[in-house]
Amino acid sequence: MVQQARAAATRQQIVRGAAEMFEKSGFEGARLGNIVENAGITKGALYFHFRSKEDLARFIIGEQHRISIASVEAIGREQVSAIEQIVMLCHEMARQIVNDPIVRAGIRITLELSADDQGPADPYLDWINSCEMLATRAVEQGDLRADIDPPRLARFIIGAFTGVQTVSQVLTQRTDLEQRVDDMWGFLLPGIMPATRHQDIARIRRARWVPDDAD
Amino acid sequence: MVQQARAAATRQQIVRGAAEMFEKSGFEGARLGNIVENAGITKGALYFHFRSKEDLARFIIGEQHRISIASVEAIGREQVSAIEQIVMLCHEMARQIVNDPIVRAGIRITLELSADDQGPADPYLDWINSCEMLATRAVEQGDLRADIDPPRLARFIIGAFTGVQTVSQVLTQRTDLEQRVDDMWGFLLPGIMPATRHQDIARIRRARWVPDDAD
Repeated sequence: MVQQARAAATRQQIVRGAAEMFEKSGFEGARLGNIVENAGITKGALYFHFRSKEDLARFIIGEQHRISIASVEAIGREQVSAIEQIVMLCHEMARQIVNDPIVRAGIRITLELSADDQGPADPYLDWINSCEMLATRAVEQGDLRADIDPPRLARFIIGAFTGVQTVSQVLTQRTDLEQRVDDMWGFLLPGIMPATRHQDIARIRRARWVPDDAD
Repeated sequence: MVQQARAAATRQQIVRGAAEMFEKSGFEGARLGNIVENAGITKGALYFHFRSKEDLARFIIGEQHRISIASVEAIGREQVSAIEQIVMLCHEMARQIVNDPIVRAGIRITLELSADDQGPADPYLDWINSCEMLATRAVEQGDLRADIDPPRLARFIIGAFTGVQTVSQVLTQRTDLEQRVDDMWGFLLPGIMPATRHQDIARIRRARWVPDDAD
């Protein structure tokens, strides 16, 4: 039992060290030797848990996936309208990027691999599918115009968010990300909501999901 | 003269070969040896023109900058409203990405370097500044709501475009990029234009700049 707990702690130490390295140097630039050094472990200990740098990168992308699915599900349980859940989702993606090194590392690796034609589509498709489901409900609830196509809107929202966070990182190291995501909704909501619901825009823009101990 | 022409041709051959390599393998992954091999030249010829891989990358980003500035200026001379010029600008960015290997290489290198905190802000700032200038004129022309803040809108448009092209690349190798940029304007224009101008939306969405021999 003690050994198992120690192994789990080492594994977590490796993943955290690798995340920092991937975030700082990217997949190509990251060196297993530096990861070992930063985590204060032996190369043998690393190879006991992960076969290769690719294996570590896959694990981190998987962790990021797990974190995002958990937040999508928790936001889906909130007792608010679907359009508010979409706004919550984008702000929660932003919050995770700012606060969680595993998420930042996952995004950097995913963006790097995205430059290849065989880049990983799953992280984008997860978010697009969740957003599409919510957009379909928002049309039913009358908060999105009836002529809005949920798959196209979902693809646009996730695309726009992806680039808004890239530009926020380059220009401000993401310090203005929450403000830029709020701007996005300020420009977008009046165009996709029917005029009869425009009085709700200010309230919808303020929608935020706060993780609690139960989640 | 013959020698000068030959040197210029070799230089162009190197830049084209390097662009393909950067686009395919990224900055970290690109090897000078492969660039030399692909361009069918000697390593000595390469070092006569460029000191290093960094030097080649800087040159390609510079070329991309020159191409984008030229199209911004040409679009600025078009006899159409500023909001149409903004739509033209985004579709022209998309067209360049799809058609020009130098632009694609420049974007891949820029996005890779963007993952670092010291990433290059200039390519984003160029587009944001051009877009902001046009947005200011579009407010004056009554095509954008009077309460729209041009710097914020410009930053959002360039951010949104950046991510829309990333997602288009990952999901469709950019084959749907023009359609996705058109979707973007379909969702965005009704929210940023005053209701009194909404009858112009279909026409504005169709605005495209066609480079001619004079440009």
